[in-house]
Amino acid sequence: MSSTAGLVIPCKAAVAWEAGKPLVIQQVEVAPPQTMEVRIKVKYTSLCHTDLYFWEAKGQTPLFPRIFGHEAAGIVESVGEGVTDLQIGDHVLPVFTGECGDCKHCKSEESNMCNLLRINTDRGVMLNDGKSRFSINGTPINHFVGTSTFSEYTVIHSGCLAKINPLAPMDKVCILSCGISTGLGATLNVAKPKRGSSIAIFGLGAVGLAAAEGARIAGASRIIGIDRSPKRFKEAEKFGITEFVNSEDHDRPIQEVIAEMTNGGVDRSVECTGNIDCMIAAFECVHDGWGVAVLVGVPSKDAVFMTKPINMLNERTLKGTFFGNYKPRTDLPSVVDMYMNKELELDKFITHRLPFSEINKAFDYMLKGEGLRCIISMEE
Amino acid sequence: MSSTAGLVIPCKAAVAWEAGKPLVIQQVEVAPPQTMEVRIKVKYTSLCHTDLYFWEAKGQTPLFPRIFGHEAAGIVESVGEGVTDLQIGDHVLPVFTGECGDCKHCKSEESNMCNLLRINTDRGVMLNDGKSRFSINGTPINHFVGTSTFSEYTVIHSGCLAKINPLAPMDKVCILSCGISTGLGATLNVAKPKRGSSIAIFGLGAVGLAAAEGARIAGASRIIGIDRSPKRFKEAEKFGITEFVNSEDHDRPIQEVIAEMTNGGVDRSVECTGNIDCMIAAFECVHDGWGVAVLVGVPSKDAVFMTKPINMLNERTLKGTFFGNYKPRTDLPSVVDMYMNKELELDKFITHRLPFSEINKAFDYMLKGEGLRCIISMEE
Ligand SMILES: NC(=O)c1ccc[n+]([C@@H]2O[C@H](COP(=O)([O-])OP(=O)(O)OC[C@H]3O[C@@H](n4cnc5c(N)ncnc54)[C@H](O)[C@@H]3O)[C@@H](O)[C@H]2O)c1
Ligand SMILES: NC(=O)c1ccc[n+]([C@@H]2O[C@H](COP(=O)([O-])OP(=O)(O)OC[C@H]3O[C@@H](n4cnc5c(N)ncnc54)[C@H](O)[C@@H]3O)[C@@H](O)[C@H]2O)c1
Ligand SMILES: [Zn+2]
Ligand SMILES: [Zn+2]
Ligand SMILES: [Zn+2]
Ligand SMILES: [Zn+2]
Repeated sequence: MSSTAGLVIPCKAAVAWEAGKPLVIQQVEVAPPQTMEVRIKVKYTSLCHTDLYFWEAKGQTPLFPRIFGHEAAGIVESVGEGVTDLQIGDHVLPVFTGECGDCKHCKSEESNMCNLLRINTDRGVMLNDGKSRFSINGTPINHFVGTSTFSEYTVIHSGCLAKINPLAPMDKVCILSCGISTGLGATLNVAKPKRGSSIAIFGLGAVGLAAAEGARIAGASRIIGIDRSPKRFKEAEKFGITEFVNSEDHDRPIQEVIAEMTNGGVDRSVECTGNIDCMIAAFECVHDGWGVAVLVGVPSKDAVFMTKPINMLNERTLKGTFFGNYKPRTDLPSVVDMYMNKELELDKFITHRLPFSEINKAFDYMLKGEGLRCIISMEE
Repeated sequence: MSSTAGLVIPCKAAVAWEAGKPLVIQQVEVAPPQTMEVRIKVKYTSLCHTDLYFWEAKGQTPLFPRIFGHEAAGIVESVGEGVTDLQIGDHVLPVFTGECGDCKHCKSEESNMCNLLRINTDRGVMLNDGKSRFSINGTPINHFVGTSTFSEYTVIHSGCLAKINPLAPMDKVCILSCGISTGLGATLNVAKPKRGSSIAIFGLGAVGLAAAEGARIAGASRIIGIDRSPKRFKEAEKFGITEFVNSEDHDRPIQEVIAEMTNGGVDRSVECTGNIDCMIAAFECVHDGWGVAVLVGVPSKDAVFMTKPINMLNERTLKGTFFGNYKPRTDLPSVVDMYMNKELELDKFITHRLPFSEINKAFDYMLKGEGLRCIISMEE
């Protein structure tokens, strides 16, 4: 048992008090984990767009005060009742979606959309008692997607923690807990390009570039990257993309441009922009007979996907994925191992590093569209 | 060599002279097969909706005079230059779509949409010389989808002929050359339901019932049949359908009804109506996480498929198929063998039989929506 087990831990957290206002680093109290919960010491965290969206709260339900953060790596400090598969000292990745192991999704080989622990961005409390484990002088502070990693300590449902190889460098593999795994899995688990095949990646943010990394690993020989922002192409150069297409350079639908470039269409496509026209283009640019399009980007609520049914009848497949179809607890450890075996490259995603005290700078970088991932070191 | 090889064969054919007017059984001359062509003696043929649509020529390009017919079985009478895989006496099924063996679709494991021999409903001539092999006193008569089986003899590209087990009864397996294989393959090759799973079949015509037969063979435990015509339910009773849903009985979207019946959705669905709302319903009624919807029905030209992208993102798959993804020459022989091994039941699809002289009655049955398949015996 650790010396802090069972006790409230006072520690530093970055608290969001208002939509779009800088986070305030201050002391919070973190209650001990309850049944099926685990308290972890966060070592590294990074910032993802989803943190930014809910912090900006434009069109999202605002829920403040709140502790954001969901891409991270940490070490188990103590476990609550009933937790048998994790122990003090284990290295873990928190995940915004979980794996209870018992529901029909967890029991299905194909789904990772756990009924109990599926992402819920509107919930600010823990499932066990409907309360928060964070407080400041008795005032509860909301959780975010069950992870809240912008805190030195946080409490997480054990189903949302993947136990990883303790030799893995946490300041790198922390980025596997959200966007990178999402893009990587979209290609490796869902699009499944064959060696020597062609693939189009729409959107060259961190998710799209992770999809491109999956294509490189799978041995695709033609990786076409599409974006509307030319500065993305510079960053993307390290990612094995063989051709860049700026969608703004063409005054006809981009699916036509790609079909022409590839003599009828690409073998696979992965959509990582969230823009509905890109989703349609991603589907329509795959080759008839065998093409598979995979949707990853999250569109606006009222977007409608429209296409002629002949596009399906001509033997195209359309799929969507959530978290790259990885089951967080079952599958993430092997993604970490892919990095350890040098199959998967992570360093090229890490463009910035900051001490926890400067976390607001990470928001600035993202708002300016600078870089891909900024690693925040909790101990600096 | 047969005694007729190389000669023009005069024989009886049912000629369509005008849209919607009864076929006229009269003598036609059938020229010998040219390079890569085969002339066959048709033994049995059946009528499919596609014949009817192009005969009615409502919204289709009219092309008359024409010899319709594409579901059939026959025997090779003679072969043209370059044909090495078929010989006189072989039993064959003609298919409206072919397999050249050389194009990128034929070389792909996944596609059956041969570039050279893919269905072309507007072409009334043979590929080799752009001319017809049928004539009446020198007037050429148009072919239909490369098969034109409403004739005692017909000339077909060798890539559109599947060589089958000579022991197979041609008066039954003839129906495998179009609709039945389409529905069967949609389930067995594309939807691939697991043993014990649930499946919804939209449209209980011959194609939908063949999809249901595929579900029975695959061991699906819940087979939900949806139609708007209650008389279809009677016929469907022999097909292992476990529940019937009349879409006209509900005043809310049928996808909601099915999701409710199945606690969140079916594992698989197959759409065999051609109605765009059914296509959308077939997609939206599959379970998130793992559901797969397969589109088979051919919609009107201006239909648009519309759905919220969240339906894909929640890990549903949408696919379309053409001829049940069977490669005609490679795969049809084994479908015939499934029948010979008593895995596949065909007799229940055959509701009428007629001699060739009464072929117009088969059109009447179909126009009235009576029965499933009418077998026409060419020798009676
Ligand atoms: N399904 C999941 O589990 C999951 C997880 C994480 C992120 N996401 C989603 O993935 C998407 C990408 O995430 P990200 O972090 O890489 O975002 P990002 O903003 O860094 O990258 C998106 C890229 O798409 C480009 N883009 C946007 N609209 C475009 C258009 N119309 N044409 C061409 N390019 C366009 C942008 O220029 C940008 O480079 C987002 O929608 C995000 O919500 C999904
Ligand atoms: N993809 C291919 O390779 C291929 C091959 C053959 C046939 N088809 C297509 O498959 C479809 C079915 O063929 P079939 O011969 O079985 O046709 P069919 O007309 O015998 O059967 C269609 C059934 O769908 C039902 N239906 C139609 N609209 C409906 C609606 N809105 N709600 C509920 N039920 C509805 C009808 O009552 C009928 O029972 C057609 O669209 C045909 O063109 C496709
Ligand atoms: Zn679960
Ligand atoms: Zn994220
Ligand atoms: Zn071919
Ligand atoms: Zn047909």
